[in-house]
Amino acid sequence: MDLTAQRELLTELCTASAEFIAPYFGNPGTKVEFKSDDSPVTAADRGAEEVMRRLIETRFPDHGIIGEEHGSAREDAEFVWVLDPIDGTKSFITGVPLWTTLIGLLHHGQPVLGAINQPTLGQLAIGDGTTTTLNGQAVHCRPTTRLSEATLVTSDHLNLAAYQDGPACDRLIQQTRLYRTWADGYGYLMLAAGFVDISMDPIMNLWDLAALIPVVHGAGGTITDWQGGGPYPAESAIAASTPELHAEVLKTLQS
Amino acid sequence: MDLTAQRELLTELCTASAEFIAPYFGNPGTKVEFKSDDSPVTAADRGAEEVMRRLIETRFPDHGIIGEEHGSAREDAEFVWVLDPIDGTKSFITGVPLWTTLIGLLHHGQPVLGAINQPTLGQLAIGDGTTTTLNGQAVHCRPTTRLSEATLVTSDHLNLAAYQDGPACDRLIQQTRLYRTWADGYGYLMLAAGFVDISMDPIMNLWDLAALIPVVHGAGGTITDWQGGGPYPAESAIAASTPELHAEVLKTLQS
Repeated sequence: MDLTAQRELLTELCTASAEFIAPYFGNPGTKVEFKSDDSPVTAADRGAEEVMRRLIETRFPDHGIIGEEHGSAREDAEFVWVLDPIDGTKSFITGVPLWTTLIGLLHHGQPVLGAINQPTLGQLAIGDGTTTTLNGQAVHCRPTTRLSEATLVTSDHLNLAAYQDGPACDRLIQQTRLYRTWADGYGYLMLAAGFVDISMDPIMNLWDLAALIPVVHGAGGTITDWQGGGPYPAESAIAASTPELHAEVLKTLQS
Repeated sequence: MDLTAQRELLTELCTASAEFIAPYFGNPGTKVEFKSDDSPVTAADRGAEEVMRRLIETRFPDHGIIGEEHGSAREDAEFVWVLDPIDGTKSFITGVPLWTTLIGLLHHGQPVLGAINQPTLGQLAIGDGTTTTLNGQAVHCRPTTRLSEATLVTSDHLNLAAYQDGPACDRLIQQTRLYRTWADGYGYLMLAAGFVDISMDPIMNLWDLAALIPVVHGAGGTITDWQGGGPYPAESAIAASTPELHAEVLKTLQS
């Protein structure tokens, strides 16, 4: 399948969203509202999604769009763009540059292209399920196969016990070399670039997830939901740098 | 007390250490060793401290130095520089720019000047106990007084239960608005700059701690050890943006 035109648009979406977001980041004047689920949102989230939707609708008027902030249009189209303008809004409003813009492209409902963009750090990962690049250079997951050598990241420590088996998560964490809450979408970029070995989130929305899958697969990683199913659609995600390590994570959570 | 000459040197130390460290950060070729306490160290840590020690010994040969990597010299001098070339080495080796270079200056054993430098993000906080600046602009802690509105950061989640009362820490975390492991020295920069409300670490070395105190105090924050003593010397640290919030943290940990 030739996705050349879609890849060109993907790059434009990254550039345009980053330009829109930049003045809001690390700016104490950025006003934060809380949505009905108590998650924070700013004018940067809403405006960046609008910018991307306009670009998509101009270039590919028959493509569908699913966006975190402005809902869905033409969801049953052959191609559907899945947008999370700022994933990790809690990092964003805290001035921590570990938020990302996530852009996925579905073909007949399955992710075929994904971007994880962290413009403050100048890091853009793009994957198509076969190859993943970071700023244009091919990247690969590390060969880590053992929990005792693994770095594990997740988005929110408190979500582990809130959405999954907390004691099982604690057992898993205790067996790893290093554990940090550096994740959101950035955790999956770090996994693809070979800096961490496990990135997992007990709760995922479609717009959090679509972009990650082609990036993880393209770097040689394994990703499923917490039951070993998925990876898309799904309501959770566990990505690991090797199939062996992924199996260890599932086994430890289920034991 | 006129610290003009010391402030000039402080800025030079920040510039020189950042230049030395830059090529090692985010570089998969950076070799990581593990010290006897299993903490990671790289040639960037050792070399940056050497660069700083040479600058200090040239400018102020009678000043003392305490450094994480190369030990102590003239510890009982009137002025003693306290150096942690890379605080947050685990962030550093994971490619996460939340590590910092910490430089403190003691006068008769008490910290009077401190720098927290994060050169990848271009953030340098300097405090003298009365005023704190971030990149030259005065900054202040937020007026947060209630746990339910507070963002809490710590360096390593597993250290909470390893070095302090784990269940008490869990109770505290549950009462905050947001909890993340974004800390090491960077957590105290974020506290001084008004992005987080509580930064706490259950285990501290002198070289982790000296620089933080003038930065936190200069921004209007409160810092003690976990028993409410200190702040220097001490083996732990709890910093909060207001005295009221600091009292809430101690009360919750002791209840």
